Amino acid sequence: MPEPLGTLTGPTPASPFANGIAPAGWRRPVRPRVGHIEFLNCVPLFWGLARTGSLLDLDLRRDSPDGLSDALTAGELDIGPISLMEFLKHAGELVALPDIAVGSDGPVMSCLIVSKVPLDQLDGAPVALGSTSRTSVRLAALLLSDLVGVRPRYFAAPPDLDVMLQDAPAAVVIGDVALRAALADAQRLRLHVYDLGEMWQEWTGLPFVFAVFAARRDFVAREPQTVQRVHQAFLASRDLSLREVDAVCEQAARWEPFDAAILRRYYMTALDFSLGPRQLAGIAEFARRVGGPDAGFPPDVEVRLLSTP
Amino acid sequence: MPEPLGTLTGPTPASPFANGIAPAGWRRPVRPRVGHIEFLNCVPLFWGLARTGSLLDLDLRRDSPDGLSDALTAGELDIGPISLMEFLKHAGELVALPDIAVGSDGPVMSCLIVSKVPLDQLDGAPVALGSTSRTSVRLAALLLSDLVGVRPRYFAAPPDLDVMLQDAPAAVVIGDVALRAALADAQRLRLHVYDLGEMWQEWTGLPFVFAVFAARRDFVAREPQTVQRVHQAFLASRDLSLREVDAVCEQAARWEPFDAAILRRYYMTALDFSLGPRQLAGIAEFARRVGGPDAGFPPDVEVRLLSTP
Repeated sequence: MPEPLGTLTGPTPASPFANGIAPAGWRRPVRPRVGHIEFLNCVPLFWGLARTGSLLDLDLRRDSPDGLSDALTAGELDIGPISLMEFLKHAGELVALPDIAVGSDGPVMSCLIVSKVPLDQLDGAPVALGSTSRTSVRLAALLLSDLVGVRPRYFAAPPDLDVMLQDAPAAVVIGDVALRAALADAQRLRLHVYDLGEMWQEWTGLPFVFAVFAARRDFVAREPQTVQRVHQAFLASRDLSLREVDAVCEQAARWEPFDAAILRRYYMTALDFSLGPRQLAGIAEFARRVGGPDAGFPPDVEVRLLSTP
Repeated sequence: MPEPLGTLTGPTPASPFANGIAPAGWRRPVRPRVGHIEFLNCVPLFWGLARTGSLLDLDLRRDSPDGLSDALTAGELDIGPISLMEFLKHAGELVALPDIAVGSDGPVMSCLIVSKVPLDQLDGAPVALGSTSRTSVRLAALLLSDLVGVRPRYFAAPPDLDVMLQDAPAAVVIGDVALRAALADAQRLRLHVYDLGEMWQEWTGLPFVFAVFAARRDFVAREPQTVQRVHQAFLASRDLSLREVDAVCEQAARWEPFDAAILRRYYMTALDFSLGPRQLAGIAEFARRVGGPDAGFPPDVEVRLLSTP
């Protein structure tokens, strides 16, 4: 059985109580409020929670990435996954959990520029940005301007590749749409596919981090042990998922538009679920290149990392 | 790994896809929407879901008993726990899952009449009814009128024993308030404690069922295999919880006002998580005694039980 994930917020210790029953005035301890994204790339981070029993010590709240990001920065959530751009904008209020993230150290498969023409022909051309992405669209714009040397005209669009490419020669897509584009649509539609993780890695020599797990600083100050336990629970969940990756992929394939073999390749060869010195260097390099008033954080934004015992 | 809990609602089989990717027009299969009550008496029914991994194949929706009951009868939930009174009122739309329920075959510990005087002195007296209870208050009124032979004047009150007993000589309480009343307050306040499960069992010789698990009939017709799988998942969860009851109680005691030993006694000697012929006879007997226009169902209300292979 896992260690308890919460600490008491009430005035009395939970147990043992005298005669086994809490005294009058006892307040029910509050489980940590933890964000849950049902995106395919997060499945291995959450899957293990439902095997270790840790889930029972969490108040898990499912929402869209935007909803969770808003809740975390508004203090309605204590801990959760958050896209890198949103994390950097709110770095003053948040602490990143070490050793865990969603990124890639090379091709990521699910964050792409899909284009009818080579990228260097996109100067001044319209480019559709998938409206559900925060970090990938910023990374794509950075790569197009500073690596390729073109300045397209961007517009937001719902993440439907066929529709996006009706109005523009190129589109930035993530998630299912991107995986499908890379694996099937590109050939069918004779499109060029550019992998944002691969481009970044070849350009900078560094991994890219698309999302981190963060805790609110005030929550860390109030319940440091709870944060450590939630952190350990996510590390254990991730490690169990990677050890039992065939089971993860078989279960996920029941609900996703990809079979287990494709998911296995995605989880084991594309995604990087770690956050170590190289990943932190990748974050710092991204912040240095895109930071400024428009981005909502300075180029030298300080990323605070949770201290672990 | 557990069997898949959902069936497809989309037009194409999920997997294997040609080349591993769903074709255009594929619709994401929908997980069954299953209700989750965080009441102490339901912990053993849900605990195992977070150990077997079944949780990942469910769209689990947490709410109050009233909220879940409304959602189930409105078709916004497919399967869930529902109090016996609400189930009987909506028996025409629902099917009970066999072999699983929340009841007792004797003292239940958590559904009580707490009184300053013997019950036969309550004729015409005010009696406070805990406002979160549906079935227990109806059972208490039945026992007082037909077994004890008194007709108190009932009024609804928030479930706070001290407040309830300021305005009345007796109160009907459930859940934490009742457990605490039975185990601690009764002695302290020199109160009489009457256990509704025990009174019913001594009166009728039958177990009492406070809540069942029900599926919507239209959902059973549409996705019979899904319902079977969810049913199996709950049975497996309950069985695992009872096998590992010490772990369940230790984990639950972190968040509840009772220590593990009290929870163990509650789960292993008070509650009855089965629904077999004797429990069904208890339901029929209760319906026969309280059914009528006021109850919202006839005395001979038909209880449909899910057919299992």
